[in-house]
Amino acid sequence: MGFEYGKRTKVWCCRDMMGGFNHYVVVKFKDGVAVEELTEGLVKMVSGIEHVKSFQWGKDIGGPDFLRQGFTHAFLMTFNGKEEFDAFQSHPNHVEFSKLFSPAVENILVLDFPPTIVKA
Amino acid sequence: MGFEYGKRTKVWCCRDMMGGFNHYVVVKFKDGVAVEELTEGLVKMVSGIEHVKSFQWGKDIGGPDFLRQGFTHAFLMTFNGKEEFDAFQSHPNHVEFSKLFSPAVENILVLDFPPTIVKA
Repeated sequence: MGFEYGKRTKVWCCRDMMGGFNHYVVVKFKDGVAVEELTEGLVKMVSGIEHVKSFQWGKDIGGPDFLRQGFTHAFLMTFNGKEEFDAFQSHPNHVEFSKLFSPAVENILVLDFPPTIVKA
Repeated sequence: MGFEYGKRTKVWCCRDMMGGFNHYVVVKFKDGVAVEELTEGLVKMVSGIEHVKSFQWGKDIGGPDFLRQGFTHAFLMTFNGKEEFDAFQSHPNHVEFSKLFSPAVENILVLDFPPTIVKA
C-alpha cells in the first residue's frame, strides 16, 4: 500500500505497519441467551490462547437500529499474521467454546483481513 | 466491568483500560464504484481530523460469503471518548466527505461502543 498525499496533509502511514491479521465478528444473540456469561466465557477462552495479539469487544450504544441492522455486539481480535489466526481457529479451546457460542447466535457477520493501519 | 478468573488463567484485564469509544463500520460498495479512490479519500479525511485516535481498515479475504453477508470492507476508528467521536461526526471535513461516500455505499453496518479491552 503506502498512500501519499499533499504536503499539507499530516499522514500517519502505512508501509511499516502492515503485516497483521484482523478477525472482526459482529453478533446478534438469540433471545433468552445469557449474554454476559457467554462473553465472560469468550474473554476467558481468548485470554488463554497466546496466538491472539489483541482483543476488545463491546455492545453497541450507537444510533438508530437501521445502522446496526439488529446486531448488538462487536468482537475485535488481531493477530501477528494469518498463521497465528489459523492457529487460533483450530485451537482446541476455541473449537470447544464454539460449541457453546454458535447455538446462542441468531446472526453473525465475520470479516477477516490484513489491516492497513493508518493511525495507530 | 473487571472480570476475575481462576488462578491458572492468564488475564489481561480491564478496569484501567476502559474509557475509549469505537466506531466500527462495515461496507459493501455499489458495483462500479472506484473503491480505491474512495478509501484513499477516507484515509486522507480521517488523517486530517485530530479527534480520531486510531484508524485501521481492510478488505475481507476470509472464508465463505455467508459469514461476511456480502460486505467487503471494514473500517475501525477509535476515540478517547464519546465526545471526541461526536466531534469527528460533526467535523466539516467528515460531513463533506460523507457526501461522496454515502452514494457509493450499497449496504452499511455501524456499531458504536465503549470497548472492553481484554488484550491490548
